[in-house]
Amino acid sequence: MSHAPTSRFHGVVPPVVTPRTADGAVDTASLEKLTKHLLEGGVSGLFVLGSSGEVPYLTNGERDVIMRTVAGVNAGAVPLIAGACEQTTPRVIAEGRRLIELGADAIVATSQFYAISDAAETETHFRSLHAALDVPLFAYDVPVRTHFKLPLPVLVQLAQDGVLAGVKDSSGDDVSFRQLLLATKDLPDFAVFTGHEVVVDGALLGGAHGAVPGLGNVDPAGYAALYAASQAGNYAEAARIQDRLANLFNIVYAPTPGRVSPGAAGLGAFKTALVLLGVIETNVMSAPMKALNEAETAVIRTVLEHNGLL
Amino acid sequence: MSHAPTSRFHGVVPPVVTPRTADGAVDTASLEKLTKHLLEGGVSGLFVLGSSGEVPYLTNGERDVIMRTVAGVNAGAVPLIAGACEQTTPRVIAEGRRLIELGADAIVATSQFYAISDAAETETHFRSLHAALDVPLFAYDVPVRTHFKLPLPVLVQLAQDGVLAGVKDSSGDDVSFRQLLLATKDLPDFAVFTGHEVVVDGALLGGAHGAVPGLGNVDPAGYAALYAASQAGNYAEAARIQDRLANLFNIVYAPTPGRVSPGAAGLGAFKTALVLLGVIETNVMSAPMKALNEAETAVIRTVLEHNGLL
Amino acid sequence: MSHAPTSRFHGVVPPVVTPRTADGAVDTASLEKLTKHLLEGGVSGLFVLGSSGEVPYLTNGERDVIMRTVAGVNAGAVPLIAGACEQTTPRVIAEGRRLIELGADAIVATSQFYAISDAAETETHFRSLHAALDVPLFAYDVPVRTHFKLPLPVLVQLAQDGVLAGVKDSSGDDVSFRQLLLATKDLPDFAVFTGHEVVVDGALLGGAHGAVPGLGNVDPAGYAALYAASQAGNYAEAARIQDRLANLFNIVYAPTPGRVSPGAAGLGAFKTALVLLGVIETNVMSAPMKALNEAETAVIRTVLEHNGLL
Amino acid sequence: MSHAPTSRFHGVVPPVVTPRTADGAVDTASLEKLTKHLLEGGVSGLFVLGSSGEVPYLTNGERDVIMRTVAGVNAGAVPLIAGACEQTTPRVIAEGRRLIELGADAIVATSQFYAISDAAETETHFRSLHAALDVPLFAYDVPVRTHFKLPLPVLVQLAQDGVLAGVKDSSGDDVSFRQLLLATKDLPDFAVFTGHEVVVDGALLGGAHGAVPGLGNVDPAGYAALYAASQAGNYAEAARIQDRLANLFNIVYAPTPGRVSPGAAGLGAFKTALVLLGVIETNVMSAPMKALNEAETAVIRTVLEHNGLL
Repeated sequence: MSHAPTSRFHGVVPPVVTPRTADGAVDTASLEKLTKHLLEGGVSGLFVLGSSGEVPYLTNGERDVIMRTVAGVNAGAVPLIAGACEQTTPRVIAEGRRLIELGADAIVATSQFYAISDAAETETHFRSLHAALDVPLFAYDVPVRTHFKLPLPVLVQLAQDGVLAGVKDSSGDDVSFRQLLLATKDLPDFAVFTGHEVVVDGALLGGAHGAVPGLGNVDPAGYAALYAASQAGNYAEAARIQDRLANLFNIVYAPTPGRVSPGAAGLGAFKTALVLLGVIETNVMSAPMKALNEAETAVIRTVLEHNGLL
Repeated sequence: MSHAPTSRFHGVVPPVVTPRTADGAVDTASLEKLTKHLLEGGVSGLFVLGSSGEVPYLTNGERDVIMRTVAGVNAGAVPLIAGACEQTTPRVIAEGRRLIELGADAIVATSQFYAISDAAETETHFRSLHAALDVPLFAYDVPVRTHFKLPLPVLVQLAQDGVLAGVKDSSGDDVSFRQLLLATKDLPDFAVFTGHEVVVDGALLGGAHGAVPGLGNVDPAGYAALYAASQAGNYAEAARIQDRLANLFNIVYAPTPGRVSPGAAGLGAFKTALVLLGVIETNVMSAPMKALNEAETAVIRTVLEHNGLL
Repeated sequence: MSHAPTSRFHGVVPPVVTPRTADGAVDTASLEKLTKHLLEGGVSGLFVLGSSGEVPYLTNGERDVIMRTVAGVNAGAVPLIAGACEQTTPRVIAEGRRLIELGADAIVATSQFYAISDAAETETHFRSLHAALDVPLFAYDVPVRTHFKLPLPVLVQLAQDGVLAGVKDSSGDDVSFRQLLLATKDLPDFAVFTGHEVVVDGALLGGAHGAVPGLGNVDPAGYAALYAASQAGNYAEAARIQDRLANLFNIVYAPTPGRVSPGAAGLGAFKTALVLLGVIETNVMSAPMKALNEAETAVIRTVLEHNGLL
Repeated sequence: MSHAPTSRFHGVVPPVVTPRTADGAVDTASLEKLTKHLLEGGVSGLFVLGSSGEVPYLTNGERDVIMRTVAGVNAGAVPLIAGACEQTTPRVIAEGRRLIELGADAIVATSQFYAISDAAETETHFRSLHAALDVPLFAYDVPVRTHFKLPLPVLVQLAQDGVLAGVKDSSGDDVSFRQLLLATKDLPDFAVFTGHEVVVDGALLGGAHGAVPGLGNVDPAGYAALYAASQAGNYAEAARIQDRLANLFNIVYAPTPGRVSPGAAGLGAFKTALVLLGVIETNVMSAPMKALNEAETAVIRTVLEHNGLL
């Protein structure tokens, strides 16, 4: 329900996509334009090096360039939450430290992956990260990638102990999400974000502090308006905006199933839309992901036009 | 968002639990009291022979007794949606026909299970059920049991073709849920229900037509009030009621993990709460599920007291 | 390793497929021919109403007809192991009793399905079945259908306690399979069968008592020869026969992925091969599964010819 | 079946575990002793930086130390297959190049992980690795970690095209394993290894070229004897040795479930056994994994004694 934010982390915090040039290099000029586009759209923070930023495909050198570029344009305007995407505790710590030196205001980390772990190790994992990293720590719950749902009791305990500053939830488990909100509602410095583009209205009604929508790259102002309506207690208006954004989200169904991978479809759609909007130069993807083709681009153009963005 | 219901199927439709006597037989006297308790609570329909009714554990004879008992008390007051819980198309048809003879106003069926099927067969499955059964047909999306998520495009096509009268969604996939609502919003006779107890407010805000909450057995009036607030456009009030009901939902965490199975924990908690409320006689479960013990019952008593139900 | 069988249940026990007439009825004449084909091929038992027999798709009436037909032709020649395919303990008991009356010499049952159960309930499940059914009880481990792997410690305990007469393993977990063989090697009345067509040689080398190969419908004499070679300690010969049968197993890849479901592909291939061999009349499948078409049949014909069966 | 090896990669290739000192550093002295222990046991190759070597937990600096240490002791005695454990194509290439500089004779890589990929991208992935790395490339099929089973048709195509020099299979899918063996039996430079400790006899009978058993750290001579028996066509003897090694494998069940994670249990058991055998100094694990405690160590001691290793 509506409430003035108590954490500095709140509102719309889009996961910044990674533009590439035609020859596959990180396109820093486009990334600068994209960062300005997001800030001008009224976002409250930036999630750098998230899944939508193709972080698992980036070499360490590329990660550094992206972190520096976004931090340069942002210049302290909004908090930068950076993803330390690594397999296990020792490697996340090393990655997190590097990102903090490059300007991260907070670090977001998943549970361990490739490892075969459990709830107890996961709790230790986050406690170790917290002890080793000098900025607020967010847990990223993304079982579709890690194949491990962060257990609700672990999250609640880590929140109460001040280990976690918040959670970015892409678990698709709205029941656990609501229980987490209820269990942490009295912790002023704890912030819960939904990562799901099409249910932000309900998440905010249930007490969430914000959203990390990949689609927010395409329409940051739309999500900012949705958040503002919710903050004003105007939930019917929030739902109307959400319905429009859910329709816009249909761009992710443009790619032909089988031609591009499930992972490339959504990200490719966001990048293609940003090309059509004139924000970035190409829709080239990190190898081995395939870019959307002309036919798929045409579908996206139609959806953008239908929703008044073109 | 708020809208006057167009389908006769809408609002709170709790899945009726199955009371048993101390020796394990179906307790028809308790079932009659429970049915009255639900109707007096203001529910808009009854979901008979659902998962919360322990339907997979019931012999055909027991299913008949339950159907007859609920239909007798209801006497046409609200629509009866009955679950035809069987493995494949031919067996669901046989089961559905029997339930219609016993008073079902609509049939709800899952995708095939135990079978190794796919999207195309699932579409054929529902078309065959629709052709063979003379009452409205609902799809029950419960991948935690069937291990198959009903594909969004299949549901939308079946809705547009008039094959399905609605969907009961227990998929935990709130993104697909919202897309289904958007895609079917112009179909006046199509009704979408959420099966998740703790996110009904957000589901209704997003356009859902009602809920099938197992917890609605325990507090039907609470869910009826939530639905009424939502219908009145008072979403903040709906969220407050939902928060209280989400707290009440904590009864499902009373059973000791490992002592009772995950399937028995929630259902056992609902039945134990109903015993404490004086609605049914025992919390005996269908074999081989274990009933909650005294210590677990004490936890539930505390939650009920904390929420003002005792 | 080679050993004279101590259980009456051993050797090749094919799961009998279900022939249908062109209009979809159970084809008892073809089923009689098939049963003779299997007995003449040298099988040591018959698995009636298994997954390969399309048991989840069969109405109770059809199950009865099949049981009676096979029992009539068999006339006590080999043991009949019958699948009581139902959702939970009470329903399996009812189903098992009916099948015993119709001539089953042993009952095979899976863990509960559609139910959300656990290891403890599963142990109770099999103990209850054993107490209620007056014939030897086999556990069928088929997580691809039940979505629950029978836990190794539960199987070992039930074997040691005489609850189970054996296991039919279609788990695909060859590690657990070997550990089960080791843990039960001193139990003379316990028999472990592999359900995987292409690794029977290794299973027998590791101490398995037999196999339940769906492909055994097509080439029962081949599997009988493989078993005989293994019994004689001639493992190299067993492996040569297995390689040929593994090549023959390629018929299951004939169906076009996407056109027929994964569940229908293998069974449809077996039935199509039996039609080509002149054993049954049609390759019609239980609804809603699709039969293989002409092009797919042509591929199967080629594989049969290549392997000298046509 | 028995055959003289045609690939230089064959036989027993244990995945070398990573000894640590009491304060958690990589213990190079113990690693040197372990490498000698393996070479003296008669292994045909060494798998460095595998899952059993705790590779996901190692920082890049630790990976370098381990690679250098093993290469130094080995001094070209047997081929070194090194695991380039990274999330995606670009990162595996960078990792692989570093390991080749440090002495790897071959690189083994999994499919992409954390990424949401598909079969087509996976084929591109391995083709890109092959093009970028100047040593033989092995695919490591380990869906329990990557959550993606390498598709059989992709593996066969990559084998026929000379992209892959072999496969290390830890998929647990013995059906796919046998089909891979059959489909590649005429490719002299392609080698298939099983990663499963307890079914090596059956794998070799079916045509596998060797094994990568974690338990081979503990009893390399036992696995070498098993391989030799198989090469001599004495499968009954191979099975007897396998039964003994399967019994020895019970050390992995010593850790208390729940106290240590599933990932730490097996690796911890191998390391604890090596301490008891006097090969390495401590059983310390990479953080956050817990080492086995005294009670668990006592169980392992008993198993070692029972199997004549102590």
